[in-house]
Amino acid sequence: MRFELTKEFFETLQDAISVQDLVWISTNVCELHEADIAAIIDELEDDEAAYLYRLLDEDMQSEVLVELEEDVRERLLQTFSSKEIADQLENMDSDDAADLIAELPASQVEEIIGLISDTEAAEEIVDLLNYAEDTAGGMMQKEFIKARLEWPVNRAVIELRKQAEDVEKVYTIYVVDDKEKLVGFLSLKQLLFAGSDSTIADLYQNKNMISVKTGDDNEDVAKTMEKYDLVSVPVIDLQGKLVGRITIDDVVDVIKDEADKDFQMASGISEKVESSSSVFLMSRARMPWLMIGLLGGILGAQVISGFEFGISKVPALAFFIPLITAMGGNVGVQSSAIVVQSLARGNAHLGSVMKKLRKEALVALINGLILSITIYSITLIFGTPILGLVVSISLFTVIMFAAMFGTLIPLILDRYNIDPALATGPFITTLNDVLGLFIYLTIGMLLFNI
Amino acid sequence: MRFELTKEFFETLQDAISVQDLVWISTNVCELHEADIAAIIDELEDDEAAYLYRLLDEDMQSEVLVELEEDVRERLLQTFSSKEIADQLENMDSDDAADLIAELPASQVEEIIGLISDTEAAEEIVDLLNYAEDTAGGMMQKEFIKARLEWPVNRAVIELRKQAEDVEKVYTIYVVDDKEKLVGFLSLKQLLFAGSDSTIADLYQNKNMISVKTGDDNEDVAKTMEKYDLVSVPVIDLQGKLVGRITIDDVVDVIKDEADKDFQMASGISEKVESSSSVFLMSRARMPWLMIGLLGGILGAQVISGFEFGISKVPALAFFIPLITAMGGNVGVQSSAIVVQSLARGNAHLGSVMKKLRKEALVALINGLILSITIYSITLIFGTPILGLVVSISLFTVIMFAAMFGTLIPLILDRYNIDPALATGPFITTLNDVLGLFIYLTIGMLLFNI
Repeated sequence: MRFELTKEFFETLQDAISVQDLVWISTNVCELHEADIAAIIDELEDDEAAYLYRLLDEDMQSEVLVELEEDVRERLLQTFSSKEIADQLENMDSDDAADLIAELPASQVEEIIGLISDTEAAEEIVDLLNYAEDTAGGMMQKEFIKARLEWPVNRAVIELRKQAEDVEKVYTIYVVDDKEKLVGFLSLKQLLFAGSDSTIADLYQNKNMISVKTGDDNEDVAKTMEKYDLVSVPVIDLQGKLVGRITIDDVVDVIKDEADKDFQMASGISEKVESSSSVFLMSRARMPWLMIGLLGGILGAQVISGFEFGISKVPALAFFIPLITAMGGNVGVQSSAIVVQSLARGNAHLGSVMKKLRKEALVALINGLILSITIYSITLIFGTPILGLVVSISLFTVIMFAAMFGTLIPLILDRYNIDPALATGPFITTLNDVLGLFIYLTIGMLLFNI
Repeated sequence: MRFELTKEFFETLQDAISVQDLVWISTNVCELHEADIAAIIDELEDDEAAYLYRLLDEDMQSEVLVELEEDVRERLLQTFSSKEIADQLENMDSDDAADLIAELPASQVEEIIGLISDTEAAEEIVDLLNYAEDTAGGMMQKEFIKARLEWPVNRAVIELRKQAEDVEKVYTIYVVDDKEKLVGFLSLKQLLFAGSDSTIADLYQNKNMISVKTGDDNEDVAKTMEKYDLVSVPVIDLQGKLVGRITIDDVVDVIKDEADKDFQMASGISEKVESSSSVFLMSRARMPWLMIGLLGGILGAQVISGFEFGISKVPALAFFIPLITAMGGNVGVQSSAIVVQSLARGNAHLGSVMKKLRKEALVALINGLILSITIYSITLIFGTPILGLVVSISLFTVIMFAAMFGTLIPLILDRYNIDPALATGPFITTLNDVLGLFIYLTIGMLLFNI
């Protein structure tokens, strides 16, 4: 059953917590899926959250902890002793434990690791903390199942049964040689349906063995798993030894985060924020782009002031300033969005830049012509024929330029290893504003003979 | 080994194809992963693609066909006879086969289905074609493994071995009762490590059994699988009968597609296009937003023309028109992006609208004050104190209004079941342009006493 958190349920729960109605809570909440309980706790007030959390059994507690939103988890953990945190960590997958420790204040980390009673688990966590967060090493977990080449199937089943106790989800069995080097893989299905007299060496596959290296960037890991439709991928070190695995659920998070970041960047927000982030963080994340916009506005004012004499003679020229700047911005953003996406997908390497530019120029030509003719007809009704001519010629020119800049700038940024998503925000809009104003007013001066 | 398609490799391959160097092609290409071969074929010219494709063995052909880009696949299939297409379909998973058939011209579909020699496969495909593409039914595949409650483990292993031949990836065994109703699940790991005297009823789990219904929207399926960290999810019909399963790789595609669509919508592109789409499609996808922008520009012109007398008296007022419109647009887009994302994540239901508005107002207040003071100081250097006052007061007012509209409009659209991502494009920008102009020029008239 899927659970839907309704307003009624939530209010009933808050009442139950306030009167400490343990029966209602344990029948209606404690039996839910950990993801649902986490979603409920995310919405509760801090003291309610802490109360509900302590009613869960120990295994559920650590599972819920992993699923909570970062800021909620941080506040909840502040009500815990170091020993309690250490106990929770022991119940978690190594990657989740390492991620959680990385969120704690540095002063507490050493103490907590010292309090973990399972030394093997502690070692795994310490090992994982060595890797940078956004690499394959930082994403991987130490829980995986491996079989040695020379094992017969019977022995493999016994050994794997031991290993499998610690591994929640088993998708693939990795096959290693006597130096722990990854040599191939085997699906659980193959093992299940194998004759008992065969060995792993008879069963395993090494063709198309896809693995990632500990230092690989997490976006590359996501692209690899997506491209090859993998549910888990083994991680090897520089010597080719198997050191961990990454599962698809972590990769889905990377893909979502990446998409969110691109979307926010295109919307002019320079740090990753959520609707629950603090007002200060939200303000700061927006400021860089607003400052660029302000700078663009001031440059625009400079350009227009250069044409002050013209505007005082033909004030109607001022009417269409917003139209020109808006259209330049829109066209620029549209063009860059397509390029940014094809760069993000990694399929823009072979197609030549010239081919892209030609195509964008063609699209701009079609749209520019349609829009210019439309605006010419409309201005004819309201204004003078010359004004109509000025607006429509400028609009066409601005659209062509904006499309070219919108295409080129992300490509250039990418060439210099700057995230091209930067280009689809106010940056392109601002550039096109200033350029558009200059084109418009220059054409205006020429045609009005000022 | 992961394969990287380099320019050198690609050119060597093109040479090899032109001289029909079968040895080079079969050693260097035919052994690659299907995803890599598909990526190569995507880049080749049509005749090269058809040549290379026919060199692959039959199993590989159908796997590559699934991975190709839609337009490449369409052109490739035009070189096939209906019988050849039918043969390829038989080798595919039922969901891929149904998706492929849905792409074919309607006139050909019936003939091809008639030519599929495996009648069970044909029936499955026909069944899947009944479901709408963007529902769970349209995403699911008929290949899954199910066990009956009453089976003993030994019998289950034998039955499952039969079933597993058709199922490429086995993650979970679904457990059904004697009416084919889904009652629970079992991991392959549990079956592998179970004692041989137990039955499925002893082993299976029914707590937290997550399933989706055939009619569920594909985005809901993606959200469910993501929330519960599922690798596959069973699909049931209205009677609760198990009819299919959806695997995570298809969901990753939905997540990516959704993110791409949102990104494009925020960039003012109204239909899903790719850098390989036709010039006509690209132009058409951009036109609606550009027309809205044009309309906004014309409305803006109307607003400014209402203040023509004022501008002819103080032409300097025109200087800051682009600054006001740009800033209004930027702030509006930033505010709406946050709301759109939290709506997309589905965690905006409990937080009240008033709370969001208060927070956005606070952020706008902080940024508005900083930016207004900045612009006041700068205009003092270049212009008159009154102009500085007009610009800074208007900028502050516009930022406050833009933040409110940017927050409210996506919430209102969502309330009326319109995709709120619509709000973060030129729509909000345009609205804020017109409003900002009116505020700016009105304040200008008041302070300049015109």
